[in-house]
Amino acid sequence: MNGPEIERLIQLLGRLPGLGPRSARRVALHLLKKRETLMQPLGAALADAARAIRACGVCGNLDTIDPCSICADPRRDAGLICVVEDVGDLWAMERGRIYSGRYHVLGGSLSALDGIGPEELNIGSLVRRVAAGGVREVIMATNATVDGQTTAHYLAERLAEHEVPLTRLAHGVPVGGELDWLDDGTLATAFKARRAL
Amino acid sequence: MNGPEIERLIQLLGRLPGLGPRSARRVALHLLKKRETLMQPLGAALADAARAIRACGVCGNLDTIDPCSICADPRRDAGLICVVEDVGDLWAMERGRIYSGRYHVLGGSLSALDGIGPEELNIGSLVRRVAAGGVREVIMATNATVDGQTTAHYLAERLAEHEVPLTRLAHGVPVGGELDWLDDGTLATAFKARRAL
Repeated sequence: MNGPEIERLIQLLGRLPGLGPRSARRVALHLLKKRETLMQPLGAALADAARAIRACGVCGNLDTIDPCSICADPRRDAGLICVVEDVGDLWAMERGRIYSGRYHVLGGSLSALDGIGPEELNIGSLVRRVAAGGVREVIMATNATVDGQTTAHYLAERLAEHEVPLTRLAHGVPVGGELDWLDDGTLATAFKARRAL
Repeated sequence: MNGPEIERLIQLLGRLPGLGPRSARRVALHLLKKRETLMQPLGAALADAARAIRACGVCGNLDTIDPCSICADPRRDAGLICVVEDVGDLWAMERGRIYSGRYHVLGGSLSALDGIGPEELNIGSLVRRVAAGGVREVIMATNATVDGQTTAHYLAERLAEHEVPLTRLAHGVPVGGELDWLDDGTLATAFKARRAL
């Protein structure tokens, strides 16, 4: 009824997390009313980001440069690797401004239910980074979920032979909670109180 | 921390209705993970729609053609005009598939609080459409809010001299609604307007 351009826009907006068909229509209508000030800039921003953003070959972070700006920053301590499941978790850590080392983004967690094994995750490159030497500590900042903890234990086994100290975030992270939804204060407390794994 | 492309994207997404800073980040991350399948198509859909969509010169609907596909459709009864506040209300009517006449989109409602007077709304063109003749009925489908009802009464005054029948949508209990959850005003209106069973 709306012409194919609007229908396609509503259909694509409905695939965003947190938007159902009704809110997708609402967003589409809001955009159509602000064509100059919001719709065109957002379209351009999406195209720009889709073109410019790539995964870092070292740590798996998303950035416009490869290696990413964290891996390329000489002020970030290359002796510390913080292992996170997802880029959103890395963003959460960076928002807290509590960490000056580097990251490794796994791209998910081991999950028997979802059929995600070690091959699906960015694990081989982590083992190679540690094996290459110079790493003083690996901080497991996987989620405090069953899958996240399973993943941390699996990584501990894989990294055992390299005898690098492994730590995990302190309890204080609510069990069952996800990093991306945590407030910065709790995250900072948990980070400072990290324990040997 | 994320590079200007991502920050700009998050900032623009945060201006969409129903998205705060946190959900804007979540949507941005989802898009960045689906660059090929969702981000690029959405960017293109936004650019396409922003370029193609215009307001109908007759009724104010948004479409790729002007007059819009409803005004241009000879099967839609030109003798009926349904007056709505917003294009979203037109979409809601069209979803119901209950109406085969034409529309007039005001672009809002009169509001003393928000400083919206008759000049800000698409009212002059409605008066001209009615004055041009051939209209058998004008249906006021403005919202059942104070502003919407004020607008309907104002329009009734403006159209009085043309002696065209004016109607409004019935008030009452929503179909599927429970009395216990209904506000007193609706219940009182529904009671007064009761019909023979």
